[in-house]
Amino acid sequence: MANHVFGVDVGGTTVKLGLFDLDGNVIDKWEIPTRTENGGKEILPDIAKSIREKMKEKELAAQDVAGVGVGVPGPVDGNGIVHKAVNLGWEQFDLKKELTGLLGGMRVEGGNDANVAALGEMWKGGGQGYRNLVAVTLGTGVGGGIIINGEIMTGSNGAGGEIGHIHVEDNETERCGCGNLGCLEEYASATGIVRLANRTLAASDKESVLRNGEVSAKAVFDAVKAGDKLAVETARKFGEYLGKGLGVIAGILDPEIIVIGGGVSKAGEVLFEYIKPPFERTAFQGCRNTIFALATLGNDAGIYGAAKMVLD
Amino acid sequence: MANHVFGVDVGGTTVKLGLFDLDGNVIDKWEIPTRTENGGKEILPDIAKSIREKMKEKELAAQDVAGVGVGVPGPVDGNGIVHKAVNLGWEQFDLKKELTGLLGGMRVEGGNDANVAALGEMWKGGGQGYRNLVAVTLGTGVGGGIIINGEIMTGSNGAGGEIGHIHVEDNETERCGCGNLGCLEEYASATGIVRLANRTLAASDKESVLRNGEVSAKAVFDAVKAGDKLAVETARKFGEYLGKGLGVIAGILDPEIIVIGGGVSKAGEVLFEYIKPPFERTAFQGCRNTIFALATLGNDAGIYGAAKMVLD
Repeated sequence: MANHVFGVDVGGTTVKLGLFDLDGNVIDKWEIPTRTENGGKEILPDIAKSIREKMKEKELAAQDVAGVGVGVPGPVDGNGIVHKAVNLGWEQFDLKKELTGLLGGMRVEGGNDANVAALGEMWKGGGQGYRNLVAVTLGTGVGGGIIINGEIMTGSNGAGGEIGHIHVEDNETERCGCGNLGCLEEYASATGIVRLANRTLAASDKESVLRNGEVSAKAVFDAVKAGDKLAVETARKFGEYLGKGLGVIAGILDPEIIVIGGGVSKAGEVLFEYIKPPFERTAFQGCRNTIFALATLGNDAGIYGAAKMVLD
Repeated sequence: MANHVFGVDVGGTTVKLGLFDLDGNVIDKWEIPTRTENGGKEILPDIAKSIREKMKEKELAAQDVAGVGVGVPGPVDGNGIVHKAVNLGWEQFDLKKELTGLLGGMRVEGGNDANVAALGEMWKGGGQGYRNLVAVTLGTGVGGGIIINGEIMTGSNGAGGEIGHIHVEDNETERCGCGNLGCLEEYASATGIVRLANRTLAASDKESVLRNGEVSAKAVFDAVKAGDKLAVETARKFGEYLGKGLGVIAGILDPEIIVIGGGVSKAGEVLFEYIKPPFERTAFQGCRNTIFALATLGNDAGIYGAAKMVLD
């Protein structure tokens, strides 16, 4: 009987892989480089080869493996069709079918990396025990994954949960990476926090430790903890955008819990001091008690969630 | 074999009932008064009695009926538990169990009326052929129903799809019925359009046909069609709020189609001239091609959707 499952998280520079038992315990995890040349044609064969080698090393036969789940940095629909993954050079193709073929018929499931990470946090991370969850990743950008009744919400084009690109500001002049103006990502990502900090510094002549070095999201929240006024002002603006944005999301989805991850979340619980008041002020009353939690799996959320896709 | 199904839409003053065949053809439809006295205790017995009478009239035995679906004006969770229905006097109780008991064990399904109406529009209305749909009802308030992969998204408290109460304006001083400031409903409902029109008229000394009579949503859109400048200005503000709000919703849910219904939608296609430009300007590019359509079932959407719940 199958008692193992592989989880694969394909990133722009490395592919993370994990071998799990069916309870979600990590048996092994490792990385291989992502070869993006030639439209990313080598990526799936590289993954298949690495999985075969690991099976040999662990003396696993095909019938010992429930399957392979794969998270992809781009839209993937409910049938495992990748629609595009710019960072990998991938155009539209049938991920499930292709990787299954490379693995001798083994079961394969595919999903968008942010959605898959959300599933991981629900399974073994900050959202354990819940089945209606929104996971928000505050990193270079803002990613989102939505789980409804225990299942990933992919959306009709695989673009469900693109919460970094909800419009939150009418008076923005700098364009977001997506081409729009005033996306949540422009204020709530690590780079967004830097943008808010620089604007706050430029608009004031108050002293601030942020004037002394490189402004980063980490520097801002370190300064917040030290009571720096302009850092607090920056965090307040960040919290207004993110708290109101999450309030809208809660009003639409009515989740049990919102799990915050990504590099910015390393600031810890202090984030909630700035996110929750605007959330509670603006969210529909029926959703105002939504729980907030920090993600706990870090960069491993993707391999956990990818494995979990196979088990659902 | 069961070849009939009942759909029931419980409103604050009347209960609408429909008898359908399994293809969704209406065999009969009728209304009974909603008796809200005594905490609404009579409502379900009245419904059961009316259904029994109709079965007798149509010579239907219990085995001829697949079941009874019920739409309720309040949150109903995925197990058919009503959490509250203020207009009916209902507190939390098990709707499925109670009505099943009154109908000799017949299958009963329950849902929130806005979600149920969305299902109706998907089955036989403006959203036919789609399985990922957002239905927006622009009436006295703004209601919303969300269908994902053909199923109602209820949310964890039965409050999913409360899109009338997403926060869209920071600078509002009049409170929404829900107690918050700046909800979408304050601008996109029939009463919201009147609010925007009155503000537009007060801020200008331009001529307008709207100055000559009672300002209503219908009067505004009639005046828009006649080229009245202040009416057009009102419609533009309405469209900015609703278009941007729907852009956010699309970015989160990635639906195939947005179906607009309710009294305001009687204005027709002209609505889209005002909603679509701000939608397309602000929505995530992967969702920008979302189809817009008008609802077609009017007040019958609820009975259609209620019946469909039983057939799913």
